[in-house]
Amino acid sequence: MSIHVTVLGCGSATPTSFRNPSSQWLDIQGEHYLIDCGEGTQTQLLKFKLRMSKLKAIFISHLHGDHFFGLPGLISSMHLMGRKEKLQIYGPEGLFPILDSIFHCSQTELRFHLEYFVVDTFKSYVLLETPKFEVISIPLKHRIPCSGFLFREKPKPRNLRPELMKFYNVPIYARKKIKQGNDFTSSSGEVIQNSKLTLDPARSVSYAYCSDTAPDESIIPIIDSATALYHEATFEDNLIDRAEQTFHSTASQAASQAKLANVEKLYLGHFSSRYRDTKTIENQACAIFPNTSNVHDGFTFDVM
Amino acid sequence: MSIHVTVLGCGSATPTSFRNPSSQWLDIQGEHYLIDCGEGTQTQLLKFKLRMSKLKAIFISHLHGDHFFGLPGLISSMHLMGRKEKLQIYGPEGLFPILDSIFHCSQTELRFHLEYFVVDTFKSYVLLETPKFEVISIPLKHRIPCSGFLFREKPKPRNLRPELMKFYNVPIYARKKIKQGNDFTSSSGEVIQNSKLTLDPARSVSYAYCSDTAPDESIIPIIDSATALYHEATFEDNLIDRAEQTFHSTASQAASQAKLANVEKLYLGHFSSRYRDTKTIENQACAIFPNTSNVHDGFTFDVM
Repeated sequence: MSIHVTVLGCGSATPTSFRNPSSQWLDIQGEHYLIDCGEGTQTQLLKFKLRMSKLKAIFISHLHGDHFFGLPGLISSMHLMGRKEKLQIYGPEGLFPILDSIFHCSQTELRFHLEYFVVDTFKSYVLLETPKFEVISIPLKHRIPCSGFLFREKPKPRNLRPELMKFYNVPIYARKKIKQGNDFTSSSGEVIQNSKLTLDPARSVSYAYCSDTAPDESIIPIIDSATALYHEATFEDNLIDRAEQTFHSTASQAASQAKLANVEKLYLGHFSSRYRDTKTIENQACAIFPNTSNVHDGFTFDVM
Repeated sequence: MSIHVTVLGCGSATPTSFRNPSSQWLDIQGEHYLIDCGEGTQTQLLKFKLRMSKLKAIFISHLHGDHFFGLPGLISSMHLMGRKEKLQIYGPEGLFPILDSIFHCSQTELRFHLEYFVVDTFKSYVLLETPKFEVISIPLKHRIPCSGFLFREKPKPRNLRPELMKFYNVPIYARKKIKQGNDFTSSSGEVIQNSKLTLDPARSVSYAYCSDTAPDESIIPIIDSATALYHEATFEDNLIDRAEQTFHSTASQAASQAKLANVEKLYLGHFSSRYRDTKTIENQACAIFPNTSNVHDGFTFDVM
């Protein structure tokens, strides 16, 4: 499995002429998801030629405006363009009454069903499960209830060792269970350990989105060994006090999280509008976790 | 008095890559006002180098998203940028609970006072009065409660006729009242009509904003003889049925309103996203009311 990510916005707080507020488009082998939806997200979709009609679900991390003020407009446009398929929205408590009151005031009866899922931002659990992958909430440490999201490919079957299949004369019908991790009992009654019969499967792909948050070690077990981590790095290191006050992270704090979690690749975003040039943030992070890249609006990457 | 208008957006319904939803910035001799605030308005302000901190009041015509989805973000940005001065917002019932719930959910305590004025969209009355001008509501005919806005310079004093001041020996102290339209009683007790003593003042400047609306003759007395009228022309003439269904206007309907109201100049906007090129709309309107111009995002004009 691979996840193709398009960054629609990676700014924080106020929009600037050079950076839109938070939003990311995920293409998971032809299924499309949105994480966060700051003001102007639908215009970014037009700009990057991504069709909103394809979206299956939208995940909103928290209710600061730079993460959801584009949502009412996006939903309205889907309605005006004739969408019929239901749309799932995952977000914190409080989001859905706002959406309802907005559509009530405009006397808009949506042509499609909005399926609301209130995210409990204080625990980590499976929000969405498909045959290929699952989406797990990541409780973040911010000024208001906030959740990150882990997109994780389901574990692949273990690889059978052909020479041992032959040696123990393992029948075809028994092999599926061995691939799933079971031991094998031969016709003579001998139990052969699964670890002897199989090799580890190819690792599963996972993508963790952690914005907005102060650095928090309690999430390390959730994002451990992720293929890619997107972590906020709102400030350069010298503004560590400001980061602490506002429950955000500096470049080095984000990199330390990546190192602790032993992820493969780190992407940084959610930059303060005070930084037009974010090279210092990248450099400070790379000193701790070398495999780091800053993103920008329109930046794309593959998690695979 | 003159009113300098900057069109920030003149699209309808869904944003496009070539047109933002409705918003206009008015500079009335150094006082700044906003009419409508579609999504992305704050980005347009940045683009056209207009400082949101200068705004004294915002007028919202109605609660379709393309006229107010940019308002929460604009207010948030003012807050984040440290605004202290109160901000007046005029809008239909329903707007203010939405704003309150949005700021409640984000636990945002605004650093400045939002002064709400609920507009009764079914009558025409003075919403705001300053020493120089007043803003009057214009009840529009739309699918949901909707109000236009007339910015009208206060009547100027009448012009005294010097030769008659001398002839009737009018003392200086009496002249102010004559300028205001009063008659004059001479020392001999003779009453001289004001119309004999004065000439009409220079006409007062007025700007009428009428979007969104079906053509409606009942507003003609309110916008009569306006210096400039901005009227929606969502559709070309061939879509008159669609205009009727959606309570919008065609090019010719907008032009007919301008002609009936005997305005000096007509500006057209709120174009459907189906029209990238709006020349046909302008041509159709000009056939009825020649002094017509289409607007576009970034278009500016002076009402004087």
